[in-house]
Amino acid sequence: MSENTYRMHLTNTLRRGRRLRRNEAAVVDGEHRITWDQYVDRVARQAGALHSLGFEKGDRVAVLSNNNYRYIEIYFGSVWAGGCICPLNTRHSVKEIVACLDDSESRILMVDSNHLSMLPEIRQEAKGLLHVVYIDDGPAPDGVLSYDELLAKSKPAEDAMCGGDDVACLYYTGGTTGAPKAVMLTHDNIWWNHVGSASEMRMNVDSVAMLSGPLFHLAGGGRIYSAAIAASTLVILPQFALPDVLDAIQHERVTHVTFVPTMLNSIMNWPELAKYDLSSIRLLVYGASPMPESLLLKLPEVFPEARMLQAYGMTELSPTVSQLRHEDHMPPEGKESRRRSAGQPISTVEIKITDPDGREVPAGTVGEIVVRGPTVMKGYWKLPELTAETLRGGWMHTGDAGYMDEDGYLFIADRIKDMIISGGENIYSAEVENALYKHPDIAECAVIGIPDEKWGEAVRAIIVLKSGATLQEADVIAHCRTLIAGYKCPKSVEFSADALPKSGPGKILKNKLRERFWSDQSRRVN
Amino acid sequence: MSENTYRMHLTNTLRRGRRLRRNEAAVVDGEHRITWDQYVDRVARQAGALHSLGFEKGDRVAVLSNNNYRYIEIYFGSVWAGGCICPLNTRHSVKEIVACLDDSESRILMVDSNHLSMLPEIRQEAKGLLHVVYIDDGPAPDGVLSYDELLAKSKPAEDAMCGGDDVACLYYTGGTTGAPKAVMLTHDNIWWNHVGSASEMRMNVDSVAMLSGPLFHLAGGGRIYSAAIAASTLVILPQFALPDVLDAIQHERVTHVTFVPTMLNSIMNWPELAKYDLSSIRLLVYGASPMPESLLLKLPEVFPEARMLQAYGMTELSPTVSQLRHEDHMPPEGKESRRRSAGQPISTVEIKITDPDGREVPAGTVGEIVVRGPTVMKGYWKLPELTAETLRGGWMHTGDAGYMDEDGYLFIADRIKDMIISGGENIYSAEVENALYKHPDIAECAVIGIPDEKWGEAVRAIIVLKSGATLQEADVIAHCRTLIAGYKCPKSVEFSADALPKSGPGKILKNKLRERFWSDQSRRVN
Repeated sequence: MSENTYRMHLTNTLRRGRRLRRNEAAVVDGEHRITWDQYVDRVARQAGALHSLGFEKGDRVAVLSNNNYRYIEIYFGSVWAGGCICPLNTRHSVKEIVACLDDSESRILMVDSNHLSMLPEIRQEAKGLLHVVYIDDGPAPDGVLSYDELLAKSKPAEDAMCGGDDVACLYYTGGTTGAPKAVMLTHDNIWWNHVGSASEMRMNVDSVAMLSGPLFHLAGGGRIYSAAIAASTLVILPQFALPDVLDAIQHERVTHVTFVPTMLNSIMNWPELAKYDLSSIRLLVYGASPMPESLLLKLPEVFPEARMLQAYGMTELSPTVSQLRHEDHMPPEGKESRRRSAGQPISTVEIKITDPDGREVPAGTVGEIVVRGPTVMKGYWKLPELTAETLRGGWMHTGDAGYMDEDGYLFIADRIKDMIISGGENIYSAEVENALYKHPDIAECAVIGIPDEKWGEAVRAIIVLKSGATLQEADVIAHCRTLIAGYKCPKSVEFSADALPKSGPGKILKNKLRERFWSDQSRRVN
Repeated sequence: MSENTYRMHLTNTLRRGRRLRRNEAAVVDGEHRITWDQYVDRVARQAGALHSLGFEKGDRVAVLSNNNYRYIEIYFGSVWAGGCICPLNTRHSVKEIVACLDDSESRILMVDSNHLSMLPEIRQEAKGLLHVVYIDDGPAPDGVLSYDELLAKSKPAEDAMCGGDDVACLYYTGGTTGAPKAVMLTHDNIWWNHVGSASEMRMNVDSVAMLSGPLFHLAGGGRIYSAAIAASTLVILPQFALPDVLDAIQHERVTHVTFVPTMLNSIMNWPELAKYDLSSIRLLVYGASPMPESLLLKLPEVFPEARMLQAYGMTELSPTVSQLRHEDHMPPEGKESRRRSAGQPISTVEIKITDPDGREVPAGTVGEIVVRGPTVMKGYWKLPELTAETLRGGWMHTGDAGYMDEDGYLFIADRIKDMIISGGENIYSAEVENALYKHPDIAECAVIGIPDEKWGEAVRAIIVLKSGATLQEADVIAHCRTLIAGYKCPKSVEFSADALPKSGPGKILKNKLRERFWSDQSRRVN
């Protein structure tokens, strides 16, 4: 070899972790404590087991399961064996799961006890499925292989040494439009995301990271990689539930947690909160929505040693695009707006804001957020045209509208497709919704554009009132006028007796709300 | 594009830095303050200037200069223009400089006022040199181009978008054996080194990094890249000198500094130290030699907000291999030995210790330190055989002997070639020297192996006494016996009236000391 090249791979994190922390815990799942020595051994054996089931280079292992330590192991076992993992959304219907299995051409499915009831139907429908493996405690049901038995009888396989732009995980996202769409993320993607965030995350051999989000989302799964890269201990919970989360933090001396603001809110309101010692927390990461200031001010009492970090991202970007750093929560005078931003790009990515023709716009001007860097996905699985369209010009087009200020802080205005163009003005539905939510009688709302002969689109608010509240259209519009410019206020208001339609993760499905209005004409697409 | 791939490049740090800190200082050199906007513009113009001088893709720009802001710009201008920089050692003789120019086939040389006197001879001797550019204040001498004028009249070039495994810098190292030997480092190498260290370095847009080491070493040059990646401000000094360093820290509110222990020692003993406010320092990085405990204990008084970080590395590894973290300086009970170690591998590299047959040895056993990862150099320039030998099996063979403890802390025993094998026992010259240095009368010493019929090699100490001191061979041996095992103690002692021969950076040249003894027989090479 006269010229050295090296492909970064995810499995070297395991070898490094083992050298540093051989007999210490790599993964903690309730009573199960897997040491780094065991972790590497089990991953290697699992790869042996996968090979014995016919798993070949480039293949995918699908997983349908709640969080557990075996699921964590599959994240690495699948790449050690030369392929990748394909985590399935546990909120999906059998039909959707079968669509993902067929689309991903997964021949092996790993399933826990919570999803056994779906199995007969899945087996009947999924065309290419050859093996089902049970990844839970207790004996495997008839006709299903046992993960534990497979591991016990398999020899550790040699690491296939996948890396670089080999796919490490395949995540099905979106799904509101029907056809399955999977994001291919590579070893490089995952690595660059972690190391580009490392300066603020500060994870190392002393860290104990907790994971309570579902492992079928990258927000959860990504923490597996981060903990391995940093050789930290990973504590997993089946889901976010109180007081389990508080018990785990106190008992395991957790240092790194990730919550969305609603979870934090429920922690802050937990009646027995004062009983818990949460002083081990060093970093509190929260999802991409600004923290209400009232909540922000209360946090230091409960988490006295914690720094705060907001992260904005999406699966296609592995996932972190920008971070609002701890120091940004206490900005210098004249820079208070930073607190409402999604922070600055992580060190490994470039962000710019473009007009519909792809030209960069000046600071302060809203446009589409586009991103370039080694964290941009390899593409959408088997969707070359959508990939080419999304990554045109070498930049990932996020579909989010936003602007950057003079200091490179990113402000997210809206999803491009949720933006309303009325009388030539851009109106960001999120801004109108924020105004609506400030009314004490409004429980839930969504703002959409509906066809209008004069204005092109007109702003329509759809509102669910709190129980017992009464409110008229004129009251709603008047309320908005006190907060935002007149042209942004709803032209019409609709009161819904039912909760608004939502996706699995709880996002309001505006597509569905728009359907009635746009059925006979097509809405522009930016 | 249906499958996205992205090559990481160093120049995107400039675009990102400009978006985040447009009008703030990127580089501070005395009175010169270069904003990020100016930095990117000047780098792009410089690339234009290089092109106008015939610089082509893959070419090298050699630089012979003390530290200044133009030198910093060349680090980026050379890659923006499609090639790389080749920094030359300012301590080299004309003959050595010409050898490097010839070997690197550099057609452009940038030179400051301190090196003009060497120019006539260099021009006469260096075969391929076409252009010399003056990179200092004041007018350029006759026959030499002016950097400032070239920039003023050049148009900004498009970024060549070099990246991935393209070479970004070529460093001549070693040089004690005569023939020039240059290390090729790529964009990927540099990036992975920085991001693998980021969790402990914690540099960001608020950081002010100071550079006082020479820019022809990666230890200095690497700080340019780190500051750019983190979008920090970089404050440069011509060299380490007191009180200039203290003035700069106080005046620029420097947050990140790198010193070797002797520099720190001189700071701690500076008579007017108490006058200075050094509270801005957040991180104090020191070179790869353990910090004397007495010094360690005094640091918090002088640098009240500083964390400490020891780094071990070498140019071939871009350069950081391992870090002794701040917390490791105050290890838990029973782990006190960590303080004497070189810490643990950074997150992006794997380290193992091997026997001469390349097999990994158990924890605690001394062997050769070998390293694998994306920070391993591309190779030695035009030396394919040496590259293949050094990188055999995919691991960089450092030539350093050491061991890892059970927790993955690395302990450096010696250079393999300085290790003495006497009666079948490995003796680490560094260990014997450490024992000798504890004697109050010894100013300088070196321990080498000399031929011995009975033992193969015998331990020989060569000693320079402090002025006025008298000491006999038997006293020296007796002193060592109180500190180390008998077989490690010198069998013979030689007193030298002159200082021991040293390389430019001050390393004692043991090759030279051994020469007399081994001239008629060859010494084993591990």
